[in-house]
Amino acid sequence: MSFELLILGCSSATPAHQRNPAAQVLTFCDKTYLIDCGEATQMQMQRYKVKAHRIDHIFISHLHGDHYLGLMGLLSSMHLQGRERELVIYCQKELKEILELQFQVSGTVLRFPLRYRFFTAPTEVLLEDEQVCIKSFDLNHRVPCKGFLFKEQPRPRNLLIEKVREAGVPFDFYPELKAGKDFINSQGEVTPNAALTIDPLPSKSYAYCSDTLYTESLIPIIQGVDLLYHEATFLHDMLDRAIETYHTTCLQAGQIASNAKVKKLVIGHFSARYKDLNPLLQEAKSAFEHVYLAEEGIVYNF
Amino acid sequence: MSFELLILGCSSATPAHQRNPAAQVLTFCDKTYLIDCGEATQMQMQRYKVKAHRIDHIFISHLHGDHYLGLMGLLSSMHLQGRERELVIYCQKELKEILELQFQVSGTVLRFPLRYRFFTAPTEVLLEDEQVCIKSFDLNHRVPCKGFLFKEQPRPRNLLIEKVREAGVPFDFYPELKAGKDFINSQGEVTPNAALTIDPLPSKSYAYCSDTLYTESLIPIIQGVDLLYHEATFLHDMLDRAIETYHTTCLQAGQIASNAKVKKLVIGHFSARYKDLNPLLQEAKSAFEHVYLAEEGIVYNF
Repeated sequence: MSFELLILGCSSATPAHQRNPAAQVLTFCDKTYLIDCGEATQMQMQRYKVKAHRIDHIFISHLHGDHYLGLMGLLSSMHLQGRERELVIYCQKELKEILELQFQVSGTVLRFPLRYRFFTAPTEVLLEDEQVCIKSFDLNHRVPCKGFLFKEQPRPRNLLIEKVREAGVPFDFYPELKAGKDFINSQGEVTPNAALTIDPLPSKSYAYCSDTLYTESLIPIIQGVDLLYHEATFLHDMLDRAIETYHTTCLQAGQIASNAKVKKLVIGHFSARYKDLNPLLQEAKSAFEHVYLAEEGIVYNF
Repeated sequence: MSFELLILGCSSATPAHQRNPAAQVLTFCDKTYLIDCGEATQMQMQRYKVKAHRIDHIFISHLHGDHYLGLMGLLSSMHLQGRERELVIYCQKELKEILELQFQVSGTVLRFPLRYRFFTAPTEVLLEDEQVCIKSFDLNHRVPCKGFLFKEQPRPRNLLIEKVREAGVPFDFYPELKAGKDFINSQGEVTPNAALTIDPLPSKSYAYCSDTLYTESLIPIIQGVDLLYHEATFLHDMLDRAIETYHTTCLQAGQIASNAKVKKLVIGHFSARYKDLNPLLQEAKSAFEHVYLAEEGIVYNF
């Protein structure tokens, strides 16, 4: 099963130094999700060989242009390329109005079903199936803004197959053993699950925190994730500006990662004022060791 | 005085082969105009060193996404970069609604005056000053679509300075001589203008014909321009598809240029199906010799 993050854009509001606005492709339990869709996302997808038809779910954190302006172009291209499968967009409700006005003016009737799933609560499950549970949670920005938490469902327990056979467990019961149940034979004798199975590998998790003021209430939500993407728009010497614009500094992003005991941190959403990003990396590293710069085209495995 | 066209995007609806959607920067009588503004125009401007603050007038031919989706991003960046000078957009009236909805949702109050000049007639003067007259004219597309004609005002006549002095023309009267008036001295003697001046160099002109069905009624409008940009989405073996989608073939674009006796033709708006553009160039050349492919980053002087 593959778990990887491909960065398509790592700039903040103004693209600069050939850095594009926010967009990333998350492969999670072998499925492909697009998170945010800044201008030129479809061109970046072409550049890095991301197949648009593999994406069925798009998550838009908030309605600042650098996080959604690429959506109309991407949807139009999906339409022109003959897409027929449903696409779901998880977003603020105003996005529907913005898109539908443009479809109407351009006389576009999409060939595929486009479904909107609006955010309705501070924290909520957006999508859940046998493999994954995806939640949104509130960030703290100038406009309503969401973070996203991807959690793999608990993996099945691993059978100790010799013990299972010795205990005479019928094949039909294996799924229940894997789900953690004890085995009771026809004589009513109980074999506890712990004698027949061992713990699976831990489930994987990913958290996306786009534009937000430094917010410690996020820590319990993103606690222990395998990979955290957190915005880090400014160096800490610009803390006043970060607070004014509801953004986070690199030092603060490192502190959040450290306090939440995540495994790896990727920082992004860099201000156009920084051409050289190394000082941003070093500042985050001073608070948390396992930090990486979001670089376009780079894949982060976890 | 400089007259040049810089292509920022030459693809049609779906970007492909690293070709971007429609946008071009026209330098005409030393002023800079942006014509169409497809997705990623602001990135292309950065790539080719076009200063956004030099642009005061943007012309949007029609409201298909590949011709305007880069506008929101460009306006946002102008705003964030502290622009204060007025910007005028020449467009269909629905564009205002599209932009203002997005400003409202993102809580953006532009720092600079944004003025809209809507198209109101089949042919009309959009902008006229001492140096240039810019007109729009109807194209024939699936949605209302405009072409643009840039004409330099007649240049002042060149003085034959020896003759002017011999005739005793006072310095104050030179502008009127340059404008073509005869000179009458204090004794009432007339020196005809033709004896004191010679013809100036011809005025320059540029015509932009974006998405349109092959339309011969354009010929008198664009007659004799120094440079014609005309869309050429398909090869002529796809004429049926061109008609169905209200586009022009390369052969037809060449024929238009030939019949209108323009000096140079640049073809663009290439379908994503063509990776190699050489056959498109050759086909247009079969009807008109002085034809060039629109290539991103290339400057066409005229």
